[in-house]
Amino acid sequence: MKIVNNIKDLKSCIKLWKDSNCSIGLVPTMGYLHEGHKSLIDRACRENDKVVVSVFVNPTQFGANEDLDKYPRDIKRDSKLCEESGASLIFAPSPDEMYSKNFSTYINVENLTDGLCGSRRPGHFRGVCTVVSKLFNLITPNKAYFGEKDAQQLAVIKHMVEDLNFDVTIVGCPIIREYNGLAKSSRNTYLSKEEKKAALILNCSLGKAKKLLKSGLKDSNDLKSVITNSLRDEPLAKIDYVEIVDSISLKPVKKIENNVLIAIAVFIGKTRLIDNFTWNI
Amino acid sequence: MKIVNNIKDLKSCIKLWKDSNCSIGLVPTMGYLHEGHKSLIDRACRENDKVVVSVFVNPTQFGANEDLDKYPRDIKRDSKLCEESGASLIFAPSPDEMYSKNFSTYINVENLTDGLCGSRRPGHFRGVCTVVSKLFNLITPNKAYFGEKDAQQLAVIKHMVEDLNFDVTIVGCPIIREYNGLAKSSRNTYLSKEEKKAALILNCSLGKAKKLLKSGLKDSNDLKSVITNSLRDEPLAKIDYVEIVDSISLKPVKKIENNVLIAIAVFIGKTRLIDNFTWNI
Repeated sequence: MKIVNNIKDLKSCIKLWKDSNCSIGLVPTMGYLHEGHKSLIDRACRENDKVVVSVFVNPTQFGANEDLDKYPRDIKRDSKLCEESGASLIFAPSPDEMYSKNFSTYINVENLTDGLCGSRRPGHFRGVCTVVSKLFNLITPNKAYFGEKDAQQLAVIKHMVEDLNFDVTIVGCPIIREYNGLAKSSRNTYLSKEEKKAALILNCSLGKAKKLLKSGLKDSNDLKSVITNSLRDEPLAKIDYVEIVDSISLKPVKKIENNVLIAIAVFIGKTRLIDNFTWNI
Repeated sequence: MKIVNNIKDLKSCIKLWKDSNCSIGLVPTMGYLHEGHKSLIDRACRENDKVVVSVFVNPTQFGANEDLDKYPRDIKRDSKLCEESGASLIFAPSPDEMYSKNFSTYINVENLTDGLCGSRRPGHFRGVCTVVSKLFNLITPNKAYFGEKDAQQLAVIKHMVEDLNFDVTIVGCPIIREYNGLAKSSRNTYLSKEEKKAALILNCSLGKAKKLLKSGLKDSNDLKSVITNSLRDEPLAKIDYVEIVDSISLKPVKKIENNVLIAIAVFIGKTRLIDNFTWNI
């Protein structure tokens, strides 16, 4: 497996593969890989001749008061995981390699980014779309893999690909959880032992919601109350949002009559965690 | 030569060419082709195995009070010109084919679009960049050809290609003029006989500026005054802007010490015309 830090070497590699008619899978990540990422890489390896894992903590998707500087990094561990999974190449550029001094081009997906994390993290999806487009143009993948944990990101990227006619298939992969139900996330590393226990409330409250949906509950506000009350039971949890939205448009719904996304963002101490599930009618 | 109106047929064609290792040149146009366009197509035909001319009056680059509806169209004449020039394919989609009902993804090049036409036509370059990106993704050209008459557009597209890592070479081609000096433009068709005569003032005033630069003039304001005064001599002309900017950053300069773009936009009656030249030190 190759580790490449610059665009020139990346492009030579891609050209060789394209000339040999290899299909290419891309797994875009910010590194500090966990079993969630591994599930994406494993699937990419099954479905493509070559697999690129990008490892890049993308500055343009972080807000001024967010955790860009302290975001966890461990390229050695990441390399080991990628190599063991059978990836062909890690692309781990520096910020300067990706963003020249005069960089000024940004991609915005409107509407889909109005709510949920989009409203709490202004500019976040602009940064995500911009860097993902750059990766698409550099790597020309046949398929690109994104986790369903970042449900809004997945919807936004799919929409961007359709709108801008990118020739890539976006594959969403299920959330991977700890044995106790906590959704895997690189940010879990911020949690103290006590906070890690408190963080179980996210999946737990979603579980309660799922039960009620199974029993036929249709009213969004009722469902939101149940989730909200469950989250409030945990003293270390501070709700950022609890939303029930149409799974395609991401617009809030009052009655649950079509497929919906139930998405939550919760601060556990200073760490912001997200979780969700899709309810298919 | 093929004329294709939908994305599916376009993509099949492109795939065939790619599979045979053909190089592809793209000439994006809004149709109503003139000798300026022809010079781009001719050059594209010389430099590529296959040439696509896109003919699309792109709604997203027109402002609410601009000439989208009355923009001249003549696909028959355009086809004849493309065929005679040796183009391989015309891509002439409908607005619905390019923009789905839920379309919401836009590309913005900041800074470079602040001045000149960018400040007079808000959203114009956002529309241009968005549609050009779509064409790049659909057609995957090796080279794309743009006229130097739209100098800001050329600079913006070049910058976008660099920032987003599009794998395409942007080729700028010189302004083509009528025998009397009027820069060729599809919008010249709006001009009455009298206005066409009045429109000569654009190139005429730029000619005066060029003479002064040759004689060693370095002060931007002095040069702007000469152009402005010359334009004011023509009663049918109303100045939109006269600007002297750095040819790379497009930022206004006070002293002419590096390469500069001298760009003007002038209403002749109701028709807005642009013209420019680059002065290389």
